[in-house]
Amino acid sequence: MPHNTTTPQSSTEAIVSHPPVDGERQWRLEQIAIGRPAEYEAVVEIVASGICHTDLGCGTAPDGTPGFPVPPYPRVLGHEGAGIVREVGSRVSKVQPGDKVLLSFAFCTQCHNCQFGAPGYCSQFSPINFTGNKEAFATIKESKPIGGSFFGQSSFSRLTKVQEVSMVKVNNLITNDEEFKLFAPLGCGIQTGAGTVTQLAKATADDTIAVIGLGGVGLSAIMAAKLQGCRTIIGIDRVPERIELAKSLGATHGINTAKMAGSLTEEVRKLTKEVGTTITIDATGVVPLIQQGVEFTANQGQVVLLGVAPMDAGLQVQVVPFMVTGKKLLGSMEGGVYPEEYIPQMIRWYQSGRFPVDRLVKFYKVGDYQQAIRDMEDGSTIKPVLLW
Amino acid sequence: MPHNTTTPQSSTEAIVSHPPVDGERQWRLEQIAIGRPAEYEAVVEIVASGICHTDLGCGTAPDGTPGFPVPPYPRVLGHEGAGIVREVGSRVSKVQPGDKVLLSFAFCTQCHNCQFGAPGYCSQFSPINFTGNKEAFATIKESKPIGGSFFGQSSFSRLTKVQEVSMVKVNNLITNDEEFKLFAPLGCGIQTGAGTVTQLAKATADDTIAVIGLGGVGLSAIMAAKLQGCRTIIGIDRVPERIELAKSLGATHGINTAKMAGSLTEEVRKLTKEVGTTITIDATGVVPLIQQGVEFTANQGQVVLLGVAPMDAGLQVQVVPFMVTGKKLLGSMEGGVYPEEYIPQMIRWYQSGRFPVDRLVKFYKVGDYQQAIRDMEDGSTIKPVLLW
Repeated sequence: MPHNTTTPQSSTEAIVSHPPVDGERQWRLEQIAIGRPAEYEAVVEIVASGICHTDLGCGTAPDGTPGFPVPPYPRVLGHEGAGIVREVGSRVSKVQPGDKVLLSFAFCTQCHNCQFGAPGYCSQFSPINFTGNKEAFATIKESKPIGGSFFGQSSFSRLTKVQEVSMVKVNNLITNDEEFKLFAPLGCGIQTGAGTVTQLAKATADDTIAVIGLGGVGLSAIMAAKLQGCRTIIGIDRVPERIELAKSLGATHGINTAKMAGSLTEEVRKLTKEVGTTITIDATGVVPLIQQGVEFTANQGQVVLLGVAPMDAGLQVQVVPFMVTGKKLLGSMEGGVYPEEYIPQMIRWYQSGRFPVDRLVKFYKVGDYQQAIRDMEDGSTIKPVLLW
Repeated sequence: MPHNTTTPQSSTEAIVSHPPVDGERQWRLEQIAIGRPAEYEAVVEIVASGICHTDLGCGTAPDGTPGFPVPPYPRVLGHEGAGIVREVGSRVSKVQPGDKVLLSFAFCTQCHNCQFGAPGYCSQFSPINFTGNKEAFATIKESKPIGGSFFGQSSFSRLTKVQEVSMVKVNNLITNDEEFKLFAPLGCGIQTGAGTVTQLAKATADDTIAVIGLGGVGLSAIMAAKLQGCRTIIGIDRVPERIELAKSLGATHGINTAKMAGSLTEEVRKLTKEVGTTITIDATGVVPLIQQGVEFTANQGQVVLLGVAPMDAGLQVQVVPFMVTGKKLLGSMEGGVYPEEYIPQMIRWYQSGRFPVDRLVKFYKVGDYQQAIRDMEDGSTIKPVLLW
């Protein structure tokens, strides 16, 4: 996909990430320049954008940090956007100006993995979604490049160029403006949690499921487990409020890892008549917790890796015990879903009252983005959504 | 399942495993005593019995070796039997005297795992199949106990007591005596290899499959891959004759690990347009080979652990790369099949010319069992079958 970064056409307001100073995040709301869309891009006016931990990581790590193949600072992040199409590139056919779109990750559409099934495993995932376009925006005065096209969208900008493949048209699905804002984060964290349960693990009413880590992704997994009618749903965290929230969203049991009598494995076994869970989802990336998850999973059960572990983290699998118990270890990227099918599905679930994403979301004016981040970091807000 | 070991009823000939001397196997063909069948057992007259590496391991390891929870020596092994029912216990309903049966592993039928799907993951698998019955047989003179009921059958005895659950009645499936003998090993090694491909990994024509280790199990996997029409089938071994045999059974490519220009991963990538394999089956249990298997498997592909690794072997899984590539790691026990369904299936495949198990089998008179073992150990025979 060639990028067109010739003469800036207009200016816009964006949260720009500058190089961290003494490890401190340097994000600033600034006016920047944005060019015309390339062939397969559209300019979208963002209405709302969710903040995800991946944004924080990619906007705080020093240039060149392994695992963060983002363009050099300054850059515009944001990958959970909702907006209205304002201009389309010459070869865009999916949308036209005025269309309401929810934004998700981008993918090449051509590789084995995009064609084999789930585009979240696209062989070009990292260059397309992280590296993006080093010259998506520019500074107003000196026309110096600013990186963007993060996850095909860089939705921390009021106007931004979005890859066609990242857009899901929802004109006919949204019934009011409130819903539209609420749905901004569907395309990443929420679809990842829910898709892991419904599409990847294919949970059914016969399943006993444990979710380790009750942030936005984990709680979305809990909601999806409830939706699938899983007979036992165990929410695991160390924050009591999150465990209570999980219970109100469908968890049948909660385990507070900060207040256990025995090991996590013992606690889960106790709740499952010593059988263990048939589906275990780790949304923490903490290896000792994953290790216990593998342990407490029932024979023939699935263990899904979903939380982002440190880049060099290794999980030791004991070959013979793993083999004879028939457990399955698998990774989830974006829940293994195809966003163009799955986002409409989640919207219908919400509208039928079975997928209350509003319980996870708190809105902030874009100017209050620092407060939103603080609330996310201290755990008082699960999923902050900025309103532009 | 209570065992009945009262007054020996008759004597029979069996290959009895005695304690190894200086690490050397001490197996002897002897007359031993056999009692009446317990409620859920039948006495079966063995016609043919395959020899498997598991027999050699369990008949050579010193008493108390970790991972070999077999009864103390002496013991009767053998777990790939074909025979004719001679007497049934009071509660046996599946067979009657005169029935032809192929024998497979035993399972409890009641646990989560037996009911959830595949009985090979039975929570009582080890006590039922390895520990078996410490008093299944006895010495003739002093009536000292001899262990048996290995995999519910101990088919290295002309007469043996078999668990009802281990018997698959094949009266109406077998067309002649030669077939009956040939099918003795279907219930373990062959079903494990084939079932892993057709039932567990559910291979289709779209799959590109690699099998590491071309013994009886690996070659059965190759035959099954051919049967499923997999587009690319790569056989990997270090013995040229086995690679040639694999090709004659359906492998489209062979890789000799003793004669590679680059790494195994590079070789496999070369053969698969750099995509890798969608299904990788390890039938060696050799960790460095498994590690490469994980490496060369395509995104979203399955890696199946099937070979028996050393009891303390660990596989290091890099959490983030594993997660983002969507690979799946799983273990196979008995191919995840239900023998009562799968053995008839394999027989029909054989009879339609699509599953040539005769290519793997070589018959030996029972008195030549030492020769059969030598031929298996030096690789000149894939699957020796003893004729009683």
